Amino acid sequence: MGTRFKCNEETIARTKAGKIRGFYDDGIYTFHGIRYARAKRFQMPEPVKPWEGVKDALSYGYICPVLNQPRPTGEVTTPHRFWPENENCQYLNIWTGTLDPRAKKPVLVWLHGGGFFSGSSIEQVCYDGAALADFGDVVVVSVNHRLNVFGYLDLSSFGEPYKNSGNAGMADLVAALKWVHENIEAFGGNPENVTIFGQSGGGAKVTALGQIPEADGLFHKAVIMSGVFSSMSSGEEVKGRELVLEILHQAGLKEDDVDRLAGIPSQRLIEAVNAAEKKFSGEGKYVEWNPVPNDWYVGDPLDCGFRDHFKAIPTLVGSVLGEFDLQPPILHKDQLSLKERRDIVAEKYGDEYADEVIRRFKAAYPDKNEVYVRSVDLLFRPGTLEYVRKKSEKGAAPVYCYMFSVCFDIDGDKLAWHCSDIPFWFHNTSLIPVCRIDGVTEKLEKVMSMALVNFARSGNPNAAGLPGWDPCTPDHVVTMILDRICEVKIDHEKDLIPYLEKVTPPFHFDPSVMGSDDDDDSEGSAWFY
Amino acid sequence: MGTRFKCNEETIARTKAGKIRGFYDDGIYTFHGIRYARAKRFQMPEPVKPWEGVKDALSYGYICPVLNQPRPTGEVTTPHRFWPENENCQYLNIWTGTLDPRAKKPVLVWLHGGGFFSGSSIEQVCYDGAALADFGDVVVVSVNHRLNVFGYLDLSSFGEPYKNSGNAGMADLVAALKWVHENIEAFGGNPENVTIFGQSGGGAKVTALGQIPEADGLFHKAVIMSGVFSSMSSGEEVKGRELVLEILHQAGLKEDDVDRLAGIPSQRLIEAVNAAEKKFSGEGKYVEWNPVPNDWYVGDPLDCGFRDHFKAIPTLVGSVLGEFDLQPPILHKDQLSLKERRDIVAEKYGDEYADEVIRRFKAAYPDKNEVYVRSVDLLFRPGTLEYVRKKSEKGAAPVYCYMFSVCFDIDGDKLAWHCSDIPFWFHNTSLIPVCRIDGVTEKLEKVMSMALVNFARSGNPNAAGLPGWDPCTPDHVVTMILDRICEVKIDHEKDLIPYLEKVTPPFHFDPSVMGSDDDDDSEGSAWFY
Repeated sequence: MGTRFKCNEETIARTKAGKIRGFYDDGIYTFHGIRYARAKRFQMPEPVKPWEGVKDALSYGYICPVLNQPRPTGEVTTPHRFWPENENCQYLNIWTGTLDPRAKKPVLVWLHGGGFFSGSSIEQVCYDGAALADFGDVVVVSVNHRLNVFGYLDLSSFGEPYKNSGNAGMADLVAALKWVHENIEAFGGNPENVTIFGQSGGGAKVTALGQIPEADGLFHKAVIMSGVFSSMSSGEEVKGRELVLEILHQAGLKEDDVDRLAGIPSQRLIEAVNAAEKKFSGEGKYVEWNPVPNDWYVGDPLDCGFRDHFKAIPTLVGSVLGEFDLQPPILHKDQLSLKERRDIVAEKYGDEYADEVIRRFKAAYPDKNEVYVRSVDLLFRPGTLEYVRKKSEKGAAPVYCYMFSVCFDIDGDKLAWHCSDIPFWFHNTSLIPVCRIDGVTEKLEKVMSMALVNFARSGNPNAAGLPGWDPCTPDHVVTMILDRICEVKIDHEKDLIPYLEKVTPPFHFDPSVMGSDDDDDSEGSAWFY
Repeated sequence: MGTRFKCNEETIARTKAGKIRGFYDDGIYTFHGIRYARAKRFQMPEPVKPWEGVKDALSYGYICPVLNQPRPTGEVTTPHRFWPENENCQYLNIWTGTLDPRAKKPVLVWLHGGGFFSGSSIEQVCYDGAALADFGDVVVVSVNHRLNVFGYLDLSSFGEPYKNSGNAGMADLVAALKWVHENIEAFGGNPENVTIFGQSGGGAKVTALGQIPEADGLFHKAVIMSGVFSSMSSGEEVKGRELVLEILHQAGLKEDDVDRLAGIPSQRLIEAVNAAEKKFSGEGKYVEWNPVPNDWYVGDPLDCGFRDHFKAIPTLVGSVLGEFDLQPPILHKDQLSLKERRDIVAEKYGDEYADEVIRRFKAAYPDKNEVYVRSVDLLFRPGTLEYVRKKSEKGAAPVYCYMFSVCFDIDGDKLAWHCSDIPFWFHNTSLIPVCRIDGVTEKLEKVMSMALVNFARSGNPNAAGLPGWDPCTPDHVVTMILDRICEVKIDHEKDLIPYLEKVTPPFHFDPSVMGSDDDDDSEGSAWFY
């Protein structure tokens, strides 16, 4: 029989609660859908009960329900995977090269993006951990947990049993890290060398875990990718009791019926939440799902400072140059005259600022066509720079910063968009056709995934093929530019980002550019070449 | 810039209704989510309206809603893809090596399985058409269409506007084939050489299309894989008006409210259908979703004969030796003594039949361990043999038959299960880890996908690496055994299948072996090695 694939006695691992069977393929043992906890709605997670015999871990577990059905669009730029939903979603996945408990390899735990309201451990095709485990000789873990109303509805004012419901999703993640701490040796991992890494909402979760004392000792390094962001909502935020009362009302329940809210079918709860959001939205208010500061979760470090324990955690943090650029593409940029390029820039920033905007952009990114300045991200980068400065204070653990600024061969050499870097970190560009850039991808993927692995191993991302990469200081942001040519720049955005923030018209997020819910076409509107 | 991936002016195709942009990757142009029709609920599909400019075909389209949320399980044996659902699901996908209208390559249109009630064009990972298009130099198309209540609810007794609602899903497929006929040249395909192929429910759809005069001329060859089956339900079937009235009742509507049933939210319709099914089930009745014979659809050929036009269509038909074997695995079969093997066989068939069962099985499959006889499929094979005999009558087009009987390295060399052959036909075993069988897969995949391609090209599946393969006659079933060693056998099951049908205890499908809906574990119960 073949030896490349195995799913038998040799692919069984022994967890504290019982034995599970994964499969082995081409060098990597894979376990999908391991239950790490159980939880009642709005309640804290509890450890899994022990079992006899062998359970299969051959299928990804349920993912947390989302409030709105996703609309399949833009799949070439960011290929997705969807999956059956159930609020009982405390599952994790593991990829490892060995089941030898003595191997003690570095462990990387992936926290998915989608804010605190959507996504899953397998939402994107590039989240598969096999290639990174193989390339980096590390153990990769990815985690599902509760989201949106299931993970972050603050019912604390309704009594002791609900005191931490506003952080149920984060509590799931802490439970997952505890499971990793107690079990990862059986998968060849080192429980004393765990790196949590996440992108977008996943990066925000990494930060939030740093501000939760119960997570201390469960992870040792932190990677935040495009994960420090400003709210895109405008208006007054609805929180706590006001939100809950409206949801109760929409569910046909009374103020003292919170216990019943915990028992209605999940689809009914979702409908009540959506009705409540719609009502608030009509009043110019908005609802956001976020961890709730209390005596368990300290709060956002940019608001209330980094905890000392978190300061001592080596950190890798960065973002992507284009992120959420929702403007129509400009094709054949390189064939435009200098005047045409300037006109395009002036159209966004105004004629009076165009020359200065271009000058400052070219100083920071001399090799990029001028028109890319219209795509420079201001949602993540300013917060990222503030984060870097505040976390790299004297005596703190090293903070390394990066900027991913590759252009891809789509829509007129589109500038790196939100999520476009993930396949490179995961060593998964072979799964994502748009990543195939001749002469660029192979080398860039290698240095990026090696930097990630080295950071997980030692807290230092320096890697063969990259120039020397120093940590930041409170006074100087040292940025590794990850692009066709990788280079280190010091304070290269100092004159650019604040200036763009000053001259950019206020950002108003227009959901219609994301397509309407009523539109049943996957790629609704025609556009013109 | 790279040339391996492209998504630009060179990846635009011109359909009759307007231009669409796909992408090019490593030799293959791919178009995902092309809308081929629009339809109102319970109504016939209508052609798409023309548009200006370029639409993107870069994301798979919505899939038809299913009545019950799928439970992720057994993903290593049959890896799935899930996707957002919407009853407006008339989308198809295309993979092709050229956009040159003069190329006129054979076209293969894939009809997915899942009975007539579930599944999608992308439900299984192995449905991706790129590898087959590349390997076989053919154009591959796959199609979403309406299913279950959306595709097969017979409202004909409620008036002219609903006269063919019981075949709406089939009408979508006819519309898709019309779209292919009118547009496939722009994708390098030959509209006069279209092969429809499908597995399980997809095979049944192939057969149904053969019995629909409106589809005549839209396809020229037919492949039915594990697609001739007996109902697994028992009891009295609920049909037509009785079913509709109960659904109306459950939806809170009256008998004359069928027009309103067409307007309620899809989720409400699904809930009403499920409530109706539950009620009938409690009465020992069952609901099945199938095309409804009328003046548009002639009916099942095993009931009412093959249409002359369909008789003239060359056909490739077969099944898999294990199909739905839901018995617990027997590990280390080869280490069992002959007596132990016989005891296992006797446990299923009874002591009085065990020796004869073994003798007949060994005559048909001399290289297989005796205990595999307990796994021999009787759901598909008897009907398949009847189909072959009836369709291969004198003067009809050739009918080729196969049996896929490989054992895989999982659960004690598990015998080929339902769907396990699809990655081989699609030349996609590299995507499916369980398919890696050293010394077997590479060769078997090559001959199987080449046989499929040759059949699509010429109506004859003979291929290099396979022994000579004759068509069947009404008197003799000629079967190509697709296994570690491929060989042709004549009437090899004649003594086996009828005997097994005689001595097998009546089959009662026990849904509990598929896991309970209430169980929120992906892999619920522990089992023992």
